[in-house]
Amino acid sequence: MTTLFAPPVAAPSLPASAEIDAIIRLALAEDVGRGDITTAATVPPGAVARAEILQKAPGVVCGLPVVEAVFAALDRRVRFTPVVPEGSFDADAGRRVVARIEGSAAAILTGERTALNFLQRLSGVATASRRAAQLVAGTPATVIDTRKTTPGLRVLEKYAVRVGGASNHRAGLDDGFLIKDNHIRAAGGITPAVHAAQRRAAPGQVVEVEVTTLRELDEALAAGATLILLDNFSTEQMRAAVAQARGRARLEASGGIGLDNLADVARTGVDYVSLGALTHSAGVLDFSLEVIA
Amino acid sequence: MTTLFAPPVAAPSLPASAEIDAIIRLALAEDVGRGDITTAATVPPGAVARAEILQKAPGVVCGLPVVEAVFAALDRRVRFTPVVPEGSFDADAGRRVVARIEGSAAAILTGERTALNFLQRLSGVATASRRAAQLVAGTPATVIDTRKTTPGLRVLEKYAVRVGGASNHRAGLDDGFLIKDNHIRAAGGITPAVHAAQRRAAPGQVVEVEVTTLRELDEALAAGATLILLDNFSTEQMRAAVAQARGRARLEASGGIGLDNLADVARTGVDYVSLGALTHSAGVLDFSLEVIA
Amino acid sequence: MTTLFAPPVAAPSLPASAEIDAIIRLALAEDVGRGDITTAATVPPGAVARAEILQKAPGVVCGLPVVEAVFAALDRRVRFTPVVPEGSFDADAGRRVVARIEGSAAAILTGERTALNFLQRLSGVATASRRAAQLVAGTPATVIDTRKTTPGLRVLEKYAVRVGGASNHRAGLDDGFLIKDNHIRAAGGITPAVHAAQRRAAPGQVVEVEVTTLRELDEALAAGATLILLDNFSTEQMRAAVAQARGRARLEASGGIGLDNLADVARTGVDYVSLGALTHSAGVLDFSLEVIA
Amino acid sequence: MTTLFAPPVAAPSLPASAEIDAIIRLALAEDVGRGDITTAATVPPGAVARAEILQKAPGVVCGLPVVEAVFAALDRRVRFTPVVPEGSFDADAGRRVVARIEGSAAAILTGERTALNFLQRLSGVATASRRAAQLVAGTPATVIDTRKTTPGLRVLEKYAVRVGGASNHRAGLDDGFLIKDNHIRAAGGITPAVHAAQRRAAPGQVVEVEVTTLRELDEALAAGATLILLDNFSTEQMRAAVAQARGRARLEASGGIGLDNLADVARTGVDYVSLGALTHSAGVLDFSLEVIA
Amino acid sequence: MTTLFAPPVAAPSLPASAEIDAIIRLALAEDVGRGDITTAATVPPGAVARAEILQKAPGVVCGLPVVEAVFAALDRRVRFTPVVPEGSFDADAGRRVVARIEGSAAAILTGERTALNFLQRLSGVATASRRAAQLVAGTPATVIDTRKTTPGLRVLEKYAVRVGGASNHRAGLDDGFLIKDNHIRAAGGITPAVHAAQRRAAPGQVVEVEVTTLRELDEALAAGATLILLDNFSTEQMRAAVAQARGRARLEASGGIGLDNLADVARTGVDYVSLGALTHSAGVLDFSLEVIA
Amino acid sequence: MTTLFAPPVAAPSLPASAEIDAIIRLALAEDVGRGDITTAATVPPGAVARAEILQKAPGVVCGLPVVEAVFAALDRRVRFTPVVPEGSFDADAGRRVVARIEGSAAAILTGERTALNFLQRLSGVATASRRAAQLVAGTPATVIDTRKTTPGLRVLEKYAVRVGGASNHRAGLDDGFLIKDNHIRAAGGITPAVHAAQRRAAPGQVVEVEVTTLRELDEALAAGATLILLDNFSTEQMRAAVAQARGRARLEASGGIGLDNLADVARTGVDYVSLGALTHSAGVLDFSLEVIA
Repeated sequence: MTTLFAPPVAAPSLPASAEIDAIIRLALAEDVGRGDITTAATVPPGAVARAEILQKAPGVVCGLPVVEAVFAALDRRVRFTPVVPEGSFDADAGRRVVARIEGSAAAILTGERTALNFLQRLSGVATASRRAAQLVAGTPATVIDTRKTTPGLRVLEKYAVRVGGASNHRAGLDDGFLIKDNHIRAAGGITPAVHAAQRRAAPGQVVEVEVTTLRELDEALAAGATLILLDNFSTEQMRAAVAQARGRARLEASGGIGLDNLADVARTGVDYVSLGALTHSAGVLDFSLEVIA
Repeated sequence: MTTLFAPPVAAPSLPASAEIDAIIRLALAEDVGRGDITTAATVPPGAVARAEILQKAPGVVCGLPVVEAVFAALDRRVRFTPVVPEGSFDADAGRRVVARIEGSAAAILTGERTALNFLQRLSGVATASRRAAQLVAGTPATVIDTRKTTPGLRVLEKYAVRVGGASNHRAGLDDGFLIKDNHIRAAGGITPAVHAAQRRAAPGQVVEVEVTTLRELDEALAAGATLILLDNFSTEQMRAAVAQARGRARLEASGGIGLDNLADVARTGVDYVSLGALTHSAGVLDFSLEVIA
Repeated sequence: MTTLFAPPVAAPSLPASAEIDAIIRLALAEDVGRGDITTAATVPPGAVARAEILQKAPGVVCGLPVVEAVFAALDRRVRFTPVVPEGSFDADAGRRVVARIEGSAAAILTGERTALNFLQRLSGVATASRRAAQLVAGTPATVIDTRKTTPGLRVLEKYAVRVGGASNHRAGLDDGFLIKDNHIRAAGGITPAVHAAQRRAAPGQVVEVEVTTLRELDEALAAGATLILLDNFSTEQMRAAVAQARGRARLEASGGIGLDNLADVARTGVDYVSLGALTHSAGVLDFSLEVIA
Repeated sequence: MTTLFAPPVAAPSLPASAEIDAIIRLALAEDVGRGDITTAATVPPGAVARAEILQKAPGVVCGLPVVEAVFAALDRRVRFTPVVPEGSFDADAGRRVVARIEGSAAAILTGERTALNFLQRLSGVATASRRAAQLVAGTPATVIDTRKTTPGLRVLEKYAVRVGGASNHRAGLDDGFLIKDNHIRAAGGITPAVHAAQRRAAPGQVVEVEVTTLRELDEALAAGATLILLDNFSTEQMRAAVAQARGRARLEASGGIGLDNLADVARTGVDYVSLGALTHSAGVLDFSLEVIA
Repeated sequence: MTTLFAPPVAAPSLPASAEIDAIIRLALAEDVGRGDITTAATVPPGAVARAEILQKAPGVVCGLPVVEAVFAALDRRVRFTPVVPEGSFDADAGRRVVARIEGSAAAILTGERTALNFLQRLSGVATASRRAAQLVAGTPATVIDTRKTTPGLRVLEKYAVRVGGASNHRAGLDDGFLIKDNHIRAAGGITPAVHAAQRRAAPGQVVEVEVTTLRELDEALAAGATLILLDNFSTEQMRAAVAQARGRARLEASGGIGLDNLADVARTGVDYVSLGALTHSAGVLDFSLEVIA
Repeated sequence: MTTLFAPPVAAPSLPASAEIDAIIRLALAEDVGRGDITTAATVPPGAVARAEILQKAPGVVCGLPVVEAVFAALDRRVRFTPVVPEGSFDADAGRRVVARIEGSAAAILTGERTALNFLQRLSGVATASRRAAQLVAGTPATVIDTRKTTPGLRVLEKYAVRVGGASNHRAGLDDGFLIKDNHIRAAGGITPAVHAAQRRAAPGQVVEVEVTTLRELDEALAAGATLILLDNFSTEQMRAAVAQARGRARLEASGGIGLDNLADVARTGVDYVSLGALTHSAGVLDFSLEVIA
C-alpha cells in the first residue's frame, strides 16, 4: 500500500455497510414506487444530461458519497464528480456548485429528489455538529451525539456528526454498555448492574452507568465504573461531580443541554457533552439540482 | 360490516404497507445490532414490566401504531394500550400519558429508543401540520406536503401530515404527473410535455405542470393542464395567476413559503399551498418512556 | 439534454422499479434453485456462446429489457442486442430474430427458460392489448386494464398493456380511489363514501365510484364524482348512462366485456372500457432461444 | 403421530416454502403500494366483516391455503374457513361458496384482489391439469408439466398441477438433469454429456437426455440414459421409439402436443407426455368475494 | 460454443445460486456491521494494495470463487487472480500462494477475515472429502455427504465435497425422497410409504427408504424401492443385505461410519457410504492473507 | 419490574437480533427448498406428533432457543419445552432428553435436520469453550474468542462461547478498534495508527494494537495503547511483555495457542488468551430427534 500512503486520514470516510445500502434502496423504492411516470412520458429514451448540485445556504456539505450511490443505484453508468471535498464549509449564502453529474437524463431526474433528501439532512447534521464543536473549542470537553437519530439513518447521521467535527457516542445497543435507570432497577442497584456488565464486557470494553445524584456517582465510582453519565445535572452539580470523580472516571454531561448553555457545560470540566439535538433537531441545509445541458 | 358502521372515518388511519414494515425492521436492526448487551447483562430473563409513554411538550401525538409495531416486532406478546387517541392535541407542557405498555422487560427496554425516535418525529410533523392548517383556516387554500421527506419515512410522514390536519400531495414519482422545468426542456416545451403525459395518464389522472411566469401559465392552460404549480411566484403574481386562470385549472403555490407568509399566500386565492417544511423542518416533539413497575 | 432531444416519446419505456428487480430475482431463484446441475456437468467453465431469440408466432414482442436484465443478473458481462424494437408487431408465423445474446455459455443456458417465460407472457399481453385497441379505434373509447394481473407481475403486465397500445387503469390500491360496493356499504352510501374520499384526495386526484344502476349513477353525479364505473351494464344501459351523465363525469364500462362485444361497448359513448382479460387471459406468444455458435 | 393416522395422503398438500412466502409478499406489496386509500377513506377503523368466496365457473378449486395466507399477511386475526376441500371439482356454472372469511373489514377489502388473483390462476391450472389427466386415463402415459411456468409462481403452479391430478416434471434446474441440444453441443455429443451428468448425479438421480431422431435415441440408450425426451416426434416416430427402447429407458413425449392430440400421443406407449400449456396457457377460473355482513 | 469446447468438465464448478449470494451478504454484514472502524481510521481513502492468500497446511484448496465474490461485494473493482486451480492439492505444510488480490486497500482489509473464514472451512471439507474418497478407491462404493451441513452453507459445503472428489446425496428436502422411520410410522408402514412417494415422484425420480433390519429390507424391495438406506447396519449385516438385494436396489450404508472403518464398509459391496463427518466435522484448513505492497 | 426480580443474570441470554432471524430463515430455505416432498407424500395433513431431542455425547447443551425458533418459523403453533437449562453440562454419554416438542407432525419432521444442525454445532462450541475456561481456572487470564467464526453464525457462536463460560472478543469490525500489521503499515507506524484510532474512538472505547516484538510493545505503550495483542509470542516473550507493561496496558496472547499449551500461556500473566479454535474447530456434539407418539 506504500505508494499511496499519506499521513493518517483526517476527513472521516463513509463506511461500507449493509445498512447504508438498505436505506438507499428503501428511499428510492418509496419515491419511485412503480416507476417515474412523468419522466417516462417526457424524457426520450437514451437522452443524456449534465447537471450540477448547488448549495444554497451557508454550512457544511455532507453526503456526497450517498448522492453518488443513489444515482448509481438507478443507472450504474452515471458519472458523479464531487467539486468540493466532503465536509467542506461554505460561509456564503451563494450558489456553490458541490458536484457534477453526467449520464442518463431519466436516471438523473428520477433520482434527484431522493439524492437531495439525503444531502440536505446530512449536511444539516454536519453543520449543527460543526457549530457545537466550535462552541466547546478550548475546553477539555468533546461534543458527542446520542441514539436519538432518525429511524433508518443511524449510520449516516453518525457519519455526518464526524464530518462536522463532533464525535460519536456508541452506535447502538450492541456497541458498549450504558446502564440507565431502568437497568439499575432491574439489576437491583448500581453496584450489581455495573458488575454484571463488567463480567459480560469484551476486552477493553468500558461500562458506562447513568447517575442522577452525587451520591449515586459515589456508588458508581466505588463499583469501578470508568465512564459515568451525569443525567440532567446543573452546571454546579457537574463541577461538584468533576471534583468528586478526581479523574477516576470520565464524565458525560447529558440532558437539558442546547447550543445556548453548551459552552457553560463544557467549561465545568466534564469530558463529554452529549447532544440529542445534533441529529434530531439539526434542520436541513438547502441544495438544488440543475440540469445544465 | 353493518353492525359496526359509523359515519365515514374522521381520523386518518395508518395504512398497512410493506414500506412501513421495512423501515421498522431497519430501525430496530440499526439500533439493536447484534443484541442489546446492557439489557442482556442486567435484566433477568423472564422479567416483566409496565411502562408509560409520556408527552413532554405541547403538540399533536402521532405514531402510536408505529410504537405498537416496534414492540410487537421484538416480542409479539407485549401489550400496548393507547391512552389518548392518535392525533389528539395537548396544549400543556405537562407530562401527559399517551400509552401504556406491558410485557417482557427486556423487549420494552430494547425497543424504547427506536419507538421514541419514531414517535418524536411523527408527532413533530403532525404538530407542524396542525399549525399550518390553522393558519390557512378560513381561506380557500389547502396546505399540502411535498416529496421533501426523510429518506425511508415517506409513508409515515405523509400520514403524520394528515393526522395533523393538512393534506398530501402525490406520494411518489408513480403517483401523479408533475412536469417540472427539466421535463419541459426534455420534451421540447410545456405543450408537448403536457400532451405526452396526458396520453400516458390513467382514467381521471390529472397532469400537473410547473410554470415560472404568467406567460407560461397561459401556455399551460392552453395545453389543457388542469393543475398548475406556480413556482416561486410573489403573492402579487399569484393573485394575477388566479385571475388569469379563471377556474380553468387549480393552482398550487410553491417555493419560498413559510409559516410567516403562509396566511398571505393562502389569501391570494390559490387552491393549494405546498410546504416542504412540514416534513423536512418540522422538528421533534419530546416524549419519554418510564417503567412504573 | 438538448442535443439528444427528439419529440416526446412514442414507445412506452420500462420504468426502473424495485418490484421489477424483485420478480426477476424471484423467478431466477425459483428456477435455478441450488444451481443448474445439467449445465454445470456439461458446459466447460469459460465457454462462451452466441444465441438468438426467435419469435415463432404473429404478435407484438414485449419484454426485451426484462430478458436483458435476466441474463445480466446471472452474468453482468453478457451482451444483449435487440434486433427489433420493443413493441414491434410481426404478422408472420415465421421465425423472426428479435434479439442476440453473446457471452458465458453457462449463463445463457441457465437463464434461457426464465427469460423466455417473461417474454412469452408479456408479449401475449401486448398482443392482446393491441387487438383490443384496434377494435375500439374510431370510437371515443379507450381500452384500459384492471388489477386482475398475475401476482408479482403487475408493473410488467401494465407496461405490456401500454406497449400493445392500450392504456392503464390505476396501478394499485394506493394509486387512485375506486369506491366499490363494499366500500359504499361500509361508508353508509354513495354520497358519504365519495365525500370521504374527496376529503382524502391529493391535488388532482380523481375519485371514481362504481354504480350498478342508473339511479346510483344519479347519486354519484350529485355527489360530485367525476369518474364513474358502470358495473355490468348492458350496452343499452350504457347509452342511457352516457345520456344521463351529459359530460359531467367520465364513464368506465366494466364487467362482462370480451373481444366479441368490445366494439359494441365502445360505440355506446363511454370513455373507458376495462378488460381484465388483457392481463389474466392473454395467453402466451411462442419464442425460443437458439445457440448459433 | 399414531392417533391421527389415516392411510397415506391422497390430496396433495401445499408445501411450506420461502418462495411461496416471497410471492405472496410481493403480490401484496405491488397491489397495496403505500396503502389502500379507498379503504382507508371509507371503512371505519375497527369495522369487522364476513365474506364469502364464490366459484363462478365449472372447474377445480385450487389455492385456498394461499388465499388464507394472503389475508393472514394483512391481519393475523382474520378467520378463514374453507367450505369445500382444496381440489374439489364443481361441474356447475353456479355460484358455489368455497370459503368464508371473517375479521377486519379493511383487511378483507384490501386483500380481496390479490387473493382472487392467486385463486383464479391456480384453479385454472388445476382445471386444465384435470382435463389433461382425464384424456390420458386408460393409457400407460402420465401427463406432466414443464418449466414453462409464470415467473414467481413455479412452486404454486406445480402444486396446482398435482391438485388437478397431473404430475410434475422437475421443479427447477437443480432438481434433476435434463440434457438438451445446447448441452449436447457443449459437451461434444450425447455420450459424453450423459456420462458427465451421471458422474455428477446423486444416488438415485436419473439423467434425462433429449433426442430429436431415432438414431440419437440409439446413442442415448447406448450411453446408459434411462429417461429420454423425444423432442417433437410424430406419433409414428414415438411408436418406433417405444419399440426401439424396449423398456430400457422411460420415454417422455414433448413438443407440439395439445389437448387435441394428447390422447393419440398417450396411446403410443410413451411413459410421459409433457405439456407446457398446463401452466402457460391454462386460463383463469372466475371467482368473486362478496361481503355478506 | 464450439471454439472454446473442451471435453466435458472435470473439476466441479461453483453454481450461481441465490443462496450463495445470501450467505456472502450475511457473512459480510455480520462482520462489518456499521463499518470497519479500524480501517476507516488508519487507511487513507484511495489507498490501493496488493495481497496474497497463502495456504499454510497440506490439503485441498476450495472456495476461491467465494473469496473473489466477497471482495467484489465490497468493491467491484478489486482484481482477484487465482494462482492455483480450485481443487488443487498441496502436500506441503509450506506457504503456497493460492491467489493474488489487487485494489482498494480498505476493501482488502475489511474483507480479509470473511474471505478466509469461507476459504478455511470449504478447504477443510474438500480435504476431508478427498481423504474419504481415497479410502474407498478400488471398491465399488461411492462416498456421499448428508444434510448434516453448517446452517447457511449447504450449497457451498456440498460443492466442496465434490471438489474434494466425493459425491453428493440429495441437496435438500425437496430434492429426492428419503423415507425415514418417522415417515414410515406416519404412513402406516414401509409399503404404503413407498407407494405414496412413488405416486408423487417426478419422471426418473427415485424413492429412497431407510431400513433397520434385513426383514425391513425385504419389505422395501417388495414395495419396489430401488434405493435403500441401511441404517446402522454392521458390516456383516451389510454383506447380507447386498446378497439379499441381488442388484434389485442400490444400497446406502449410513450411521456409525468414520474414517477408521470406512474402507471395511466400502468392501461390503454397498453402493454408497454416507458420512456426515465430511461436512460437520471436517475441521478447517489454515490460510492467511498478506499485504505485499 | 420489581416483582420478578432475581439477582443479576448468571446464564447468558440469547439476544434478539436481525442476524439470527436471517440465518434461521436461510438455513430453513436451503434445506426445505421448494418443499419437503417426503413429508408431503407420507404424513397426513393435520397429523400431530410429540417428539424428544436427545443428547448423545457428553458436553454442554447450547442452542435450545434456536431450535424453538426453527420450529416456530415452520408452524407458529408448535410447542417447545426445554427439559434441561440452556448451558447445562452432561457428563454421561447417555441419552439425556434436553427438550420436548409437540405439534404438527409435518413441521416437526421438516424442521428436524435444520434444528439439529444448529444444536450440534452450538453445543460443540459451548463444550469447547467450557473446556478452555476450565484450563485457565486459577490463573488471571480470561479465554476469549476471535472473529474466526463460521460465516453467518457469528452472533450465535459468540453466544455459545459465553454459554460455555468463556468470553467474547469484539463482535465485528465495527465493535472496537484492533490495529493489525496491515493497518500499521497503512498508517505509517504504530504511533500514528494508535493516535488516529483514538481520535475516532467513542467515549470509553479502547484501541487495541497488535505487536510482534517487545520493541513494538514499547512503542505501543508509549503511544498510549491500553490493550495490546501479543502476536505469536513465545511464553517466555509473554512473560517479558507482562513485566515490561507493568499494568499500563492489558495484554492479549494470540496465535499458536491450543488446548495443550493454553494453561502455560495463561500462567504467563497475560490478561486474555484468544483462541480461534473455540469457534472454527470446536467439532459438533451429537443430538437426535425422536418422535414418541
